[in-house]
Amino acid sequence: MTGGVPFVAGPADLARLSFPELTALAGRIRDFLVDKVSRTGGHLGPNLGTVELTIALHRVFSSPRDVLLFDTGHQAYVHKILTGRATEFDTLRQAGGLSGYPSRSESEHDVIENSHASTALSYADGLAKAFALRREDRRVVAVVGDGALTGGMCWEALNNIAAAPDRPVIIVLNDNGRSYAPTVGGIASHLAELRFSGTRNLFEDIGIAYLGPVDGHDIPALEHALRQAARRGCPVLLHCLTHKGKGYPAAERDEADRLHAVSPRDGSRQPTWTAVFADEIAAIGADRPDVVCVTAAMAEPAGLARFAAEFPGRVFDVGIAEQHAVTSAAGLAIGGMHPVVAIYATFLNRAVDQLLMDVALHRLPVTFVLDRAGITGPDGPSHHGMWDASILPVVPGLRLACPRDPIRLRELLREAVEVSDGPTVVRYPKASAGPDIPALRRTGHCDVLREDPDADVLLVAVGPLAEACLTAADDLDVPVTVVDPRWVAPVDPALIKLACAHRLVVAVEDTTTPGALGGRIAQALAAIGSETCAATFALPPTFVPHASRAEILRAHGLDAAGITTTVLKRLEALS
Amino acid sequence: MTGGVPFVAGPADLARLSFPELTALAGRIRDFLVDKVSRTGGHLGPNLGTVELTIALHRVFSSPRDVLLFDTGHQAYVHKILTGRATEFDTLRQAGGLSGYPSRSESEHDVIENSHASTALSYADGLAKAFALRREDRRVVAVVGDGALTGGMCWEALNNIAAAPDRPVIIVLNDNGRSYAPTVGGIASHLAELRFSGTRNLFEDIGIAYLGPVDGHDIPALEHALRQAARRGCPVLLHCLTHKGKGYPAAERDEADRLHAVSPRDGSRQPTWTAVFADEIAAIGADRPDVVCVTAAMAEPAGLARFAAEFPGRVFDVGIAEQHAVTSAAGLAIGGMHPVVAIYATFLNRAVDQLLMDVALHRLPVTFVLDRAGITGPDGPSHHGMWDASILPVVPGLRLACPRDPIRLRELLREAVEVSDGPTVVRYPKASAGPDIPALRRTGHCDVLREDPDADVLLVAVGPLAEACLTAADDLDVPVTVVDPRWVAPVDPALIKLACAHRLVVAVEDTTTPGALGGRIAQALAAIGSETCAATFALPPTFVPHASRAEILRAHGLDAAGITTTVLKRLEALS
Repeated sequence: MTGGVPFVAGPADLARLSFPELTALAGRIRDFLVDKVSRTGGHLGPNLGTVELTIALHRVFSSPRDVLLFDTGHQAYVHKILTGRATEFDTLRQAGGLSGYPSRSESEHDVIENSHASTALSYADGLAKAFALRREDRRVVAVVGDGALTGGMCWEALNNIAAAPDRPVIIVLNDNGRSYAPTVGGIASHLAELRFSGTRNLFEDIGIAYLGPVDGHDIPALEHALRQAARRGCPVLLHCLTHKGKGYPAAERDEADRLHAVSPRDGSRQPTWTAVFADEIAAIGADRPDVVCVTAAMAEPAGLARFAAEFPGRVFDVGIAEQHAVTSAAGLAIGGMHPVVAIYATFLNRAVDQLLMDVALHRLPVTFVLDRAGITGPDGPSHHGMWDASILPVVPGLRLACPRDPIRLRELLREAVEVSDGPTVVRYPKASAGPDIPALRRTGHCDVLREDPDADVLLVAVGPLAEACLTAADDLDVPVTVVDPRWVAPVDPALIKLACAHRLVVAVEDTTTPGALGGRIAQALAAIGSETCAATFALPPTFVPHASRAEILRAHGLDAAGITTTVLKRLEALS
Repeated sequence: MTGGVPFVAGPADLARLSFPELTALAGRIRDFLVDKVSRTGGHLGPNLGTVELTIALHRVFSSPRDVLLFDTGHQAYVHKILTGRATEFDTLRQAGGLSGYPSRSESEHDVIENSHASTALSYADGLAKAFALRREDRRVVAVVGDGALTGGMCWEALNNIAAAPDRPVIIVLNDNGRSYAPTVGGIASHLAELRFSGTRNLFEDIGIAYLGPVDGHDIPALEHALRQAARRGCPVLLHCLTHKGKGYPAAERDEADRLHAVSPRDGSRQPTWTAVFADEIAAIGADRPDVVCVTAAMAEPAGLARFAAEFPGRVFDVGIAEQHAVTSAAGLAIGGMHPVVAIYATFLNRAVDQLLMDVALHRLPVTFVLDRAGITGPDGPSHHGMWDASILPVVPGLRLACPRDPIRLRELLREAVEVSDGPTVVRYPKASAGPDIPALRRTGHCDVLREDPDADVLLVAVGPLAEACLTAADDLDVPVTVVDPRWVAPVDPALIKLACAHRLVVAVEDTTTPGALGGRIAQALAAIGSETCAATFALPPTFVPHASRAEILRAHGLDAAGITTTVLKRLEALS
């Protein structure tokens, strides 16, 4: 590492520096990022691309009085360094350490914590409205990537921002031509055109002034353009051209994703759930010419690279556009295909209405494969997939599967794509898929994993928590039966029949408690007048901070020791 | 009525008619619509505006081989008439009768049943992809309004449609300058500009050919333009100018919404929930200068007209853009305001992620007022608000209120806007608000409405179902206590304490069963080892067809007689 730690106490420090000193600072920040993030893991490429831009923003605007909003907050590391947090980077994304995204508890300079893309322009519109009503003279600046611009929220926001020529919002378009992968669609082509021609463009068409393009690595040019934008007093978009991974040859060479994110090695030799899916969906693709895949800018991380290589033309990357991913999949299904939408669990919340109305109401065969379901880990509260399994059971006709091991993932995925009259979902976490866990017998859709005819307790072990449940059953000195429902929604009548034969049912699930399987089992038991008590053992109804997946599950009692303790406590309460 | 019933057996009938005969047919269809819809209720203005357009579409394209998709299906009445359903219009929106939207069970010419806006272009993209893969030579035509174009889904779809110049999708932009109200924002201004100038436009900017504008009431001109569009062999948008309410003076004169929809008189003299809200939010506006309202093209039907008149500048209509409505409200809240987002319950599903991440994760004080919550009635499955109360409890920190009478709506709305650390929701149905129902006493947040110290049964009466629960309690010959929780999420500890004192708890709620209050009470009881049985008495986990609200509630046992029967059955099962 050259040049030492870029200690900057706060944005005011930047005012004293000359342009050559700022350029030197940019170099030190880059070296610092490469060094730190390689060790802790985190988002590298996006932050290397925004070093000069972030310096210029903090020179021209006065945060926190002026509000700087970073869309998809993983591009905010430089902002953290410039607002006095460089010394904390050794703790990045660790339990109790620096968040990988802006975090209001860390700094008054952080305003929005959300890492889901395409939101910043909407926040900006609301803030500008508030400041106008309160007659506060504060500027609102939103930094948004060209990838995020493919998300519909940006369009909704641009339409509204344009409607008020006297309510200035400064939009900084950080155009590096990609999100994870290169940006797709008509917008990307249009932005590429604008790099070379000065014709009227879509922003001006709808009433937003356009400035640029400007070299996003040239601090004086950026400052000049930002000051110009601020002087306009109307909604304005400044088009900045940046290079993801800038200044780090390993990232610049990486055509796949410019070292979008790097992970510290986890040491596991077992394949991940994603890898098992990647393998099986390719096999299914060979058997079933009607199976096509849809992804929202995530083909590689969602496990579609092999399918895409083997079946070119049968993977549709729609950009960061989950709503369109789901409803275009509905269209594909009406047209006779069986689409598999591979997406991170947390991002499916963007398309709840589309899944409910456009897919389920029409009883269309669309399979959703939710990666990063349950606790995800270091990406924190906006990346944990702890909502889908609690929300999706409301969707009529939807079948939701949680595989417990690699064999079951392959099996359930095959069952899912065989369903022809409604949506199916297969969910799994960001983790190693673990060893195979054999069943003793099957009843209905359920696999009985351990059975004791004298058991008072039925442990319902959902998906990847099966291993911990079996260990807990070993550790308990009371007889316990353990069952894996495989399909957790709708509730299988065979599961209810099995439950009725026990005094206590404990459903162990990697999802938030309201809406979890335990409550739905209790509903089914109450409907038939059963006196069996059905307890829910799941994540608390709160947002969960970042830490490793294992740390978080342990903290919430979802490991073997925690399950043992809870079962004993519930049993005691019943006696 | 002049000219007689426009009996058309199917689109093929149209081929035989001359242009003068088609014009005469258009006139007969208009008279027919005014006559029928005035009596049955339904969408009038939008259908009067698309008579000629629909005739031309069926002349140029060959449905069902070519696929005609109507965005926001309430503009499809003429399509129904032209596909052999004129004789069924007396049953429009009645139980068992003609649906107010396209319906696949009615006709092979109906493809999408969804009435939520902005979806058709995404369906079209998926269908075009399927037809290309399957080498089927079928055209895909999507009719979309200028109002729906403000929805982000359209942007996502346009971006993808533009990406494939060799995969033709024909977009027919039905531009009448409004949705319910005049269309807002930069897009509307741009479309207005295009009416008069031929400059390059935003569609061409991103790579979609533009044709028009064409007079949407001139059949020969429309046919010519549609044939031109079909010949292009690439994605093309045809800009049609129409007049909502065309040909019916009462609608053309109506500046508010051009008789968007008409209702048959229901005879009730009691104020609706909407009217009570309209009154109280205006009173709150006077007391609280920080309260502002946000609406997604629904200011008038969502009860904001009076607030808007009294506090100009404090209502923000963002267009059909629920995602932006919610996240711009988050921005308003960060900026120091207390936004009240007034929206139909079913449309909040468009913004689940925004509510969860942009509002709740940031613990922002935003109040959501959900009109048309629970069973709505004649608008059918995509308008019933039967999802929100089952989904929203997963949102950490969110408080959800269901008022039982007008006094409680005012009270709970006041309590909601007092909350400063997270989202609040107040929901009510499309109905009269009914008489006031006094409480005997309050425990925690709950109102005890009827109390019997010997009661084995606790009826938890949620919101507007309180009246039916009280009648059921009168009719039952066992002692029953009835409690209104007022706030149904999170579950009030006082409610659990009360529940523990009974053998059987029956939670009666106007929402879908999975995720309903009964299951969450059961979870809470199981967590403390209570042996009280908590039953859920709510809507079934299916889509519910159109009929009147009273008919549907009765059919699902959510009236007094049904509640009585169910309580007896549950009691019997327990003994």
